[in-house]
Amino acid sequence: MQESGNPCIFIPYQRDLAMKTLCNPGMLLLLIMLTNTGIMSQQPAQDVFTVIHNRKSVRQYADKPVENEKVETLLKAAMAAPTARNIQPWLFYVITSRQVLDQLAADLPYAKMLAHAPMAIVVAGDTHKGNPNQEQKLNWALDCSAATQNLLLAAEALGLGAVWTGVFPYSQRVEAVSQALELPAHIIPLNVIPVGYPASDEQPKDKWDPEKIRWID
Amino acid sequence: MQESGNPCIFIPYQRDLAMKTLCNPGMLLLLIMLTNTGIMSQQPAQDVFTVIHNRKSVRQYADKPVENEKVETLLKAAMAAPTARNIQPWLFYVITSRQVLDQLAADLPYAKMLAHAPMAIVVAGDTHKGNPNQEQKLNWALDCSAATQNLLLAAEALGLGAVWTGVFPYSQRVEAVSQALELPAHIIPLNVIPVGYPASDEQPKDKWDPEKIRWID
Repeated sequence: MQESGNPCIFIPYQRDLAMKTLCNPGMLLLLIMLTNTGIMSQQPAQDVFTVIHNRKSVRQYADKPVENEKVETLLKAAMAAPTARNIQPWLFYVITSRQVLDQLAADLPYAKMLAHAPMAIVVAGDTHKGNPNQEQKLNWALDCSAATQNLLLAAEALGLGAVWTGVFPYSQRVEAVSQALELPAHIIPLNVIPVGYPASDEQPKDKWDPEKIRWID
Repeated sequence: MQESGNPCIFIPYQRDLAMKTLCNPGMLLLLIMLTNTGIMSQQPAQDVFTVIHNRKSVRQYADKPVENEKVETLLKAAMAAPTARNIQPWLFYVITSRQVLDQLAADLPYAKMLAHAPMAIVVAGDTHKGNPNQEQKLNWALDCSAATQNLLLAAEALGLGAVWTGVFPYSQRVEAVSQALELPAHIIPLNVIPVGYPASDEQPKDKWDPEKIRWID
């Protein structure tokens, strides 16, 4: 049944299902689909809706460092967020220094878990970017929030645990983080995100509430 | 080679690959994996990283309404975002009224595409939520930005096109949207997001820039 020129023509035994599968157009298509969905690539595919709805705030971490490759994947996701006028006003501080993590844990009221986290990422805004006028000057905080959300989703997808601990707009917290990281005045930290492998079993919250929707039709 | 009791034993022709596939444990496993990743379920699985990196601002839409079911999927994703102190200070205005869409297109300098969009979603903050003090009062904008990012990712995953057109912190735009939607003073619109089926071929921007990373170790 095989046409001449088809590499399968020389397979001696029909029971060689593996080879037959590879030479079957339908099966090949299946394999290509699997590859595209990431199942057969290095990074397993994670359905975006599953990740969005499974994301949770994780506050306890295993005593295990986070691989640099994964940190880079988090930051690549963060930088894919949209920004007003495409200004990309963000900076990302990746903190693995035990001393700095402990300092932040001591100084921030809602980030005590940093004392037991292997690392943290601070998402900060560069308020000099794009020469913003008075009206535009808050855009950095919205852009950095969108980037943070991408980062948190990426963490969930990679099997990491993370939590957005708020810094801006609390002036005391902004000051504490700015001091610990020696930030210039025009760089404003939005948050501190401890990241690690989860050591607890936090569950996602179901926040779906149709009452929050207004239909204008 | 088949053991007795295996339902495949009676397949008369080895060339019946389809049946053989179904009876092959490896192939069955493959099918189960496909089902689990959503490829064979109603909503196809979309890898979260693919969606994050493929998301783009879409400004032209086909003359085709967006199904209510999809709108609900967008809003469910939006409401899965984290919020400061879990206050969920958001409201979502789903606008399909031609008159309101045209009004907004006329009043907003960077949202002219609303005149040709089948619908739009306004993400707004309820500043009465959580009795915020002066310092906390901007949290709604960060929370609503994270929700917006989830919504934009969900749109990309559903094959919809959308774009975040900024409203807050621009006072004139806030006023225009508040008037068009008859919002009370404590509800502040963050953005207007036209949504539709894409009628153009916008490409995602590659914004990865390692220079935006500071390593503190």
